[in-house]
Amino acid sequence: MPELPVITLLSDFGTSDYFVGAVKGAILSRNSQVTLVDITHDVPPQDIESGAFTLFAAYRSFPPGTIHLAVVDPGVGSERRAIVVHAGGHLFVGPDNGLFTFIYESEDDARVFEIDKQKYLVDSGSSSFHGRDLFGPVAAILSTGVEPETVGPEISDPVRLRPLKPEVDGNGTVRGRILQIDRFGNCITNITKDLAPSEVTIKDRRITQFRTFFAEAKQEELFVIWGSAGFLEIAIQNGSAAEELGVAAGDDVLCVLSASLR
Amino acid sequence: MPELPVITLLSDFGTSDYFVGAVKGAILSRNSQVTLVDITHDVPPQDIESGAFTLFAAYRSFPPGTIHLAVVDPGVGSERRAIVVHAGGHLFVGPDNGLFTFIYESEDDARVFEIDKQKYLVDSGSSSFHGRDLFGPVAAILSTGVEPETVGPEISDPVRLRPLKPEVDGNGTVRGRILQIDRFGNCITNITKDLAPSEVTIKDRRITQFRTFFAEAKQEELFVIWGSAGFLEIAIQNGSAAEELGVAAGDDVLCVLSASLR
Amino acid sequence: MPELPVITLLSDFGTSDYFVGAVKGAILSRNSQVTLVDITHDVPPQDIESGAFTLFAAYRSFPPGTIHLAVVDPGVGSERRAIVVHAGGHLFVGPDNGLFTFIYESEDDARVFEIDKQKYLVDSGSSSFHGRDLFGPVAAILSTGVEPETVGPEISDPVRLRPLKPEVDGNGTVRGRILQIDRFGNCITNITKDLAPSEVTIKDRRITQFRTFFAEAKQEELFVIWGSAGFLEIAIQNGSAAEELGVAAGDDVLCVLSASLR
Repeated sequence: MPELPVITLLSDFGTSDYFVGAVKGAILSRNSQVTLVDITHDVPPQDIESGAFTLFAAYRSFPPGTIHLAVVDPGVGSERRAIVVHAGGHLFVGPDNGLFTFIYESEDDARVFEIDKQKYLVDSGSSSFHGRDLFGPVAAILSTGVEPETVGPEISDPVRLRPLKPEVDGNGTVRGRILQIDRFGNCITNITKDLAPSEVTIKDRRITQFRTFFAEAKQEELFVIWGSAGFLEIAIQNGSAAEELGVAAGDDVLCVLSASLR
Repeated sequence: MPELPVITLLSDFGTSDYFVGAVKGAILSRNSQVTLVDITHDVPPQDIESGAFTLFAAYRSFPPGTIHLAVVDPGVGSERRAIVVHAGGHLFVGPDNGLFTFIYESEDDARVFEIDKQKYLVDSGSSSFHGRDLFGPVAAILSTGVEPETVGPEISDPVRLRPLKPEVDGNGTVRGRILQIDRFGNCITNITKDLAPSEVTIKDRRITQFRTFFAEAKQEELFVIWGSAGFLEIAIQNGSAAEELGVAAGDDVLCVLSASLR
Repeated sequence: MPELPVITLLSDFGTSDYFVGAVKGAILSRNSQVTLVDITHDVPPQDIESGAFTLFAAYRSFPPGTIHLAVVDPGVGSERRAIVVHAGGHLFVGPDNGLFTFIYESEDDARVFEIDKQKYLVDSGSSSFHGRDLFGPVAAILSTGVEPETVGPEISDPVRLRPLKPEVDGNGTVRGRILQIDRFGNCITNITKDLAPSEVTIKDRRITQFRTFFAEAKQEELFVIWGSAGFLEIAIQNGSAAEELGVAAGDDVLCVLSASLR
């Protein structure tokens, strides 16, 4: 039996409107023999960086050959390019607005192709729904085995957001940030294990307690933990660290680089 | 390889309870070789017209042969009929309460069959969950290739809501309405391109600015755009037009028919 | 054609983060030829009893052989055991914290196996995401036909929450409870038909009106109905009984056992 290819979907469409259904219909109309998997459709409206992080944190769990359709697209209908990214054995389809920044950063072999809109954009009488009229159809075509090179010319200057990697200054101070607040109120930062911090500072509060799992912490204790996306997280057991700290995505998190790494 | 048939699901069940899982289980128990696609389960509770619009806006993106299971069903358990609609190459399964009004309006070949409850209703000891006990099973049976004619007698008087098409009076005034507020706060109206309006009036505010895509608009500018469902939408870039205008689904939207069309 | 096995997912992960996508990716990386079905991911954070009820109410609708992956797991990373349950022809995978209590209670043939973490836990550098790193992989392996006995030793003392069955005292008073408030505000109790109650008392309010379907009730009338999960529900047509009564999951619901049953 031929294998069913996997197409994931990530967007800021929400799940109350016809949008997600229409994108899936557009895919299934071109290749009905696929497995469709939602990563999320609840990216905050037009928050490209948030979408970029969620895609980054999820994609590596999928098998090579997976096609990731990602649409957070405030520039839809404008001159912004539409692209296919081939990286780490995965394919990514979406707008060229930085949504794939962290993929470029983590996969050395990333190649980016600009989708030929003349050839692939379906004329629906509207310019506002490329998920259905362009990206979905291209993802479906790729799922039939068409090579990414065929969608259009390779480009070398895709749009990038600020990188995932935090800045480290001459004194060994790491200026990180909160990438995302998760459902439980945990603050996912961009600080990684190789920086080997021994404490973090956020909103003038120093947190020194490291835990290896949530149930290990004391009630109401603010602690840090190496989280499942590979980053340091700030958490409270059975509570929202984000609420307790009054922080949001984008806020600074400082730590000091381990002396041995300076 | 035989193709996996597609069954879509639309309801007001929400996604927090066991309801959606149970409907899918009931389908898979009868035919596990199907592709299930959620359109939405967040139709406002018992809002048949909202469900009718979302189904209408999504179904045409799916391939012919798709089976659409739609359950917004305040009358469940009562004498209201259960039906299968065959229209435009698609099949629809659900209660006869107007949920398929816009399908009848847009597909000339619509035929409606009343499901024989004696034959198909599973006795679960409860009369309140026809999604699981009647519509799901019928959708599964249809997905095995059974003809819609076999579910029961054809009927000619299915329940209809008010039509999608707006009223036009003798003076060329088009009295449209807001069909839906989408996630982004855009107001989707029932005004179509063939009416060729040059401005719209809503809550005594005249909007004359037409845009072809969102990023084209000025910040905070209220504008109209031909939306992806084929209707005129009222929007603000990066904001909620519905909030700005203080409007809701059902509210009037007026425009004047282009002189050439009167 | 070989059949696609069915894996259901239930969790408290929400649907905004990368969690659900990552679990599905971990499954598909090991067996891409499965049908994945979400029961819900909106179990209130860390509410094991709520998750247990939703799983219980949904699983029987699925075909025998279905694998149910359930993760509400405040003790993740601790010494709490990870288990596979084989019961009623279904398989269940998740933490040993009571999440499968109602399965044990309703299926006489339940057998429980402790998953060998040494063998199956994927080392991701984090101890907080067993949905992706342990339970998903085990579910995928089971979906390839591996016997549940092979995941580890059988155990006889799985963790159990208080049972679903209400207490009945010597006077025939049944002390039940609200298991769940559903999306519509209906209060699902744990009172079953065999108790044959003729009225219920909740927060000092007596409700005597039984209805067989929702549309049968009078506007604003508080009534009881035998619900689709097999339990007595307290409801109001087109309104929220939970709000009207000011009750929540866990609250007492009293009734008197029919005289013939004492």
